Amino acid sequence: MTPLHMESGSLADGRQILYYSNEPAGGRAAYADKRDLGERVSAGEIRYDRLRDEWVAVSAGRSGRPQLPVACPLCPSRDGELTEVPAPDYEVAVFENRFPSFGGFAEPGPLAPTEIGPEMEVAAPASGRCEVVVFSDDHDSSLVDLSPERVALVVRAQAQRTADLYARGDVAQVFCFENRGVEIGVTLHHPHGQIYGYPYTTPQTRKYLDAAKRHKAATGRDLFDDIIASESRSDRVIAENDHWIAFTPFAARWPFEVQVYPKARFADLTELPDEYIDSFAPLYLDLLKRCDAAYPGEPMPYMSGWHQAPIGADREFGRLRLELVSIRRGPGRVKFLASSESVMGGWVHDLGPEASAAILKGAL
Amino acid sequence: MTPLHMESGSLADGRQILYYSNEPAGGRAAYADKRDLGERVSAGEIRYDRLRDEWVAVSAGRSGRPQLPVACPLCPSRDGELTEVPAPDYEVAVFENRFPSFGGFAEPGPLAPTEIGPEMEVAAPASGRCEVVVFSDDHDSSLVDLSPERVALVVRAQAQRTADLYARGDVAQVFCFENRGVEIGVTLHHPHGQIYGYPYTTPQTRKYLDAAKRHKAATGRDLFDDIIASESRSDRVIAENDHWIAFTPFAARWPFEVQVYPKARFADLTELPDEYIDSFAPLYLDLLKRCDAAYPGEPMPYMSGWHQAPIGADREFGRLRLELVSIRRGPGRVKFLASSESVMGGWVHDLGPEASAAILKGAL
Repeated sequence: MTPLHMESGSLADGRQILYYSNEPAGGRAAYADKRDLGERVSAGEIRYDRLRDEWVAVSAGRSGRPQLPVACPLCPSRDGELTEVPAPDYEVAVFENRFPSFGGFAEPGPLAPTEIGPEMEVAAPASGRCEVVVFSDDHDSSLVDLSPERVALVVRAQAQRTADLYARGDVAQVFCFENRGVEIGVTLHHPHGQIYGYPYTTPQTRKYLDAAKRHKAATGRDLFDDIIASESRSDRVIAENDHWIAFTPFAARWPFEVQVYPKARFADLTELPDEYIDSFAPLYLDLLKRCDAAYPGEPMPYMSGWHQAPIGADREFGRLRLELVSIRRGPGRVKFLASSESVMGGWVHDLGPEASAAILKGAL
Repeated sequence: MTPLHMESGSLADGRQILYYSNEPAGGRAAYADKRDLGERVSAGEIRYDRLRDEWVAVSAGRSGRPQLPVACPLCPSRDGELTEVPAPDYEVAVFENRFPSFGGFAEPGPLAPTEIGPEMEVAAPASGRCEVVVFSDDHDSSLVDLSPERVALVVRAQAQRTADLYARGDVAQVFCFENRGVEIGVTLHHPHGQIYGYPYTTPQTRKYLDAAKRHKAATGRDLFDDIIASESRSDRVIAENDHWIAFTPFAARWPFEVQVYPKARFADLTELPDEYIDSFAPLYLDLLKRCDAAYPGEPMPYMSGWHQAPIGADREFGRLRLELVSIRRGPGRVKFLASSESVMGGWVHDLGPEASAAILKGAL
């Protein structure tokens, strides 16, 4: 069992901060946050979109969040420069988002209603929790530059955060993700990811669960097993080791899209064995290096996150996997999701999944 | 009955071009396209995404399409500068897209299969049709600058295109839309829109149809009637006249989002009476002016399109309406759809629908 060290402290407005480390470390949580942050910012509400049968969060407080602030709030605090992280150094730091889309209330709220009444305007508190996960105290680094041990530590922290968030009672689904690149609007360049604890099962996840249920009913088999078996025989496999396989799927929709599956079934990160985490790290770093090498001099903007089974209904049909997608579609060119994709859900892949996979396969 | 004049001609690679006008005009279709375009470019295939139960188009040929070419291909052809429009002037011109996501084959193909077999990789030809709709021969204009009569002509052309595309047999749903603004990747600034004739019912439309079916079964009422009644009592109504109402919906997801409904039920543009088209034009121009005035000096980038009922199953639950959305979320700021929205479908509205509607209401 790989040791995971954790300390928990508080920020000036009451938000929790957690320090995770591979090395035993003591005392980081004892550093006080000396800022005057005023009242804590809470999320707003979720509203039911009856036309789409989906929840939408309304979070007007987020409009005040920083746009590339001068001082980086994710760096360790130094004399005269106080940040979101009071300690003078850290390996991985996690803290509640100051401008949350979900949560931030005094007490955990309820999950989103699953039965909707006849009234036309249905709303509920935007329960849940939003966290920031800082991958390193080195501002100028990037996840792809970190060691496999650090990447594994990030995943272990994500797993423990998932367990903690599912234990709250106001989180239906946990999503651990990273947005990277100004091309997709990232406002802080310090290497970091985020965790959203949604008070509802997200719309995309409901689609996967429904598809897996239908497949089981029609064939008696597990949909994800069948997908992995089919994709592993394709020419779209980017990387593979004993425990993991990474491929661009047959019906990819993003110019670059890679699905990374553990070869055994786990519902979420909390079930992932240590050896899977340890073997994920080098495979994922290899994938990130391929992404950055695809168009030399242009690090790939990407969105990457873990699909995890929700805690509630149909959890048995969920399957842990990572999805990495990019809008990069050529040198200096990005794909914009315009009317067909954004309004109708009609996606067009301009490169072709095989050509896109070939670029990543040949990038190193 | 407002007269609609139309002439049909051909481009050098066999694509159809149509000239629509309010004024009787003859002879535009007689101008020959003198370019050497080589072989016609056809769309590729659609692939079935089993995880999402959706079709995705794979159209590698589109990678060659122009990125802000030096000479505008939508201007009328002039001596020495040959464009996509051979005539020396026009009111509204429509032609098949040279780099189509759907169609372009020698013969109309089949609709997408509605029954999916057990094989893991299911594909079909990307049947259908993609058209470009040029709103004016004035390159430096914009839809918002045109007369109500011209806007009505555009809608009449869209209605006739919808009828023609539904008559082909390889189009399940017609989507008439406009993308405007470099912020959303528009490569040609000449005022124009597009029409996609999909060989399948789009995923968003299936959601609306399912929701309307459920609502009918649960309440006996029409979902859209109930939405219009509820929204018309809200403080999110932007504009209204005898035939139309425009509002930001209760559960809006885009920073700016306006739904424009005819007050009576029509399945698609082909059913829209003349007086509705005539009264749509000034209301829509008022809405566009409000959008452009919201942040002075920053014309709003937007995506705007007509939701139309598909031709096949559940057509009776569809309802014609226009949706206009924008990623603008403040002066010089746009919303990026990052991991939560793009990967999980978890939307967060940063402004709040009421605040967003208030900006548009107060903009003029």
